[in-house]
Amino acid sequence: MESFFTFLEKRVSDSSSLLCIGLDPHISDLPSPNADGAAAFCLGLIERTARYAAAFKPNAAFFEQFGASGWMALQRVIEAVREQSQRQGSLIPVILDAKRGDISSTAEAYARSAFSTLGAHAITLSPYLGRDSVEPFLAAPEKGAFLLCKTSNPGAADLQDLTVAGTGEPLYLAVARLAQAWNSRDNVGLVVGATQPDALSRVRQAAPGMWFLAPGVGAQGGDLEIALRAGLRRDGRGLLLPVSRAISRSADPGKAAAELRDKIIEIQYHLT
Amino acid sequence: MESFFTFLEKRVSDSSSLLCIGLDPHISDLPSPNADGAAAFCLGLIERTARYAAAFKPNAAFFEQFGASGWMALQRVIEAVREQSQRQGSLIPVILDAKRGDISSTAEAYARSAFSTLGAHAITLSPYLGRDSVEPFLAAPEKGAFLLCKTSNPGAADLQDLTVAGTGEPLYLAVARLAQAWNSRDNVGLVVGATQPDALSRVRQAAPGMWFLAPGVGAQGGDLEIALRAGLRRDGRGLLLPVSRAISRSADPGKAAAELRDKIIEIQYHLT
Repeated sequence: MESFFTFLEKRVSDSSSLLCIGLDPHISDLPSPNADGAAAFCLGLIERTARYAAAFKPNAAFFEQFGASGWMALQRVIEAVREQSQRQGSLIPVILDAKRGDISSTAEAYARSAFSTLGAHAITLSPYLGRDSVEPFLAAPEKGAFLLCKTSNPGAADLQDLTVAGTGEPLYLAVARLAQAWNSRDNVGLVVGATQPDALSRVRQAAPGMWFLAPGVGAQGGDLEIALRAGLRRDGRGLLLPVSRAISRSADPGKAAAELRDKIIEIQYHLT
Repeated sequence: MESFFTFLEKRVSDSSSLLCIGLDPHISDLPSPNADGAAAFCLGLIERTARYAAAFKPNAAFFEQFGASGWMALQRVIEAVREQSQRQGSLIPVILDAKRGDISSTAEAYARSAFSTLGAHAITLSPYLGRDSVEPFLAAPEKGAFLLCKTSNPGAADLQDLTVAGTGEPLYLAVARLAQAWNSRDNVGLVVGATQPDALSRVRQAAPGMWFLAPGVGAQGGDLEIALRAGLRRDGRGLLLPVSRAISRSADPGKAAAELRDKIIEIQYHLT
């Protein structure tokens, strides 16, 4: 039985890439400010960057803002990734960035929405409601979930950095340890910002074998080598680097993706 | 300038009710297992219970599971609440139970989706990403947000009950204090389970003036009088009681809603 991370590892090998191309159709970047514009924006980006993508990550919010037609655009976008996968003979996982989090039958409905209706392979989730809010997303090993752990926004300090009594550790490390305990089917990952290398390396210590989705490289200005040094597993993998605007806004997105992928390979080579 | 809670207070007066009717189209309850069935289920429920509703609370998950057509059904459902409001000459707030939580431009897109595209008046949010993930939902005082604080599922213990060093208090009380600090426009509430009266009364002490959305009465078995005693503000308000299956699955949903509303009035009268 193959797990989500078996699929991801295969794709990382096939593409020699740790890049996760973000599909974030910001209204200001669209050819027309509607769902068709959002689809066109994403389809173009998929076409140009699929060779260099370990995964694609559409953000649900930028589709939902267009209502039902946005939802249809999201389905077309995920379908386009599936077509690229077939063309390449290599499954490119789609991580739906949705940050959902609800309980029991509601969580099951969200899992159905992401995995069955939309056909995504993984989803991002909030951990605030605990284990039973996460479990419905983990029932099928070939589908995965990345739990928010330590983010890089200013408000992250409000909850994530609070020290948990008895352990002396910040809340985000408690989340990392829980996620590791819940990872019995090899389909749980963590979202850990790439812009705070100290935090990234503490999470890596707490969860040495897990995959992290580490945003912040590129538009958010994280230093690539420092992030890789702090976050890579010993085998030089375990870190998926989402990049959106740094690629989508460049004059040649394919070239930008290829260059970033190659830069990562070079640093991986130095570090391992 | 009127705030979300001014609208809610008016509606509570107009309906003499603290009931928040949940619109949760579980597939097993639908006349047909699709988006049309979900819409029909909710429209019937709105028609029968609107007189006794302080608010309606559609849960996004049960619509999203049907993809784009589910999203269209959700729009029809919110439109039906607006029509009932016009018929009654009293605005019935729609609280979109979506438990979103993301940062900056993404949070703005979610706020646009809930408030502009769908026309909801308030939304439920996860607090895990902190202040800047909540702020985009609070920019317009007439729109509100309820932050997850203390839920009643087993997994709530995983994060919410952890003791914060230095304060000796559980994390959920830290969330209550933060939410109170962020409530400068009278549009922030909290989600606090009704089934754990001790926790409910601790949150009430920490946030004496705030509105709580307190699920657990009805199908989840919370004792109504104990919950009201623990959670009501001194003025006998401040607690919105979501009920879904206990009303939707009864032979006569209108009668069930009326009886529950009256029972609450009776307890309010005793307690204040």
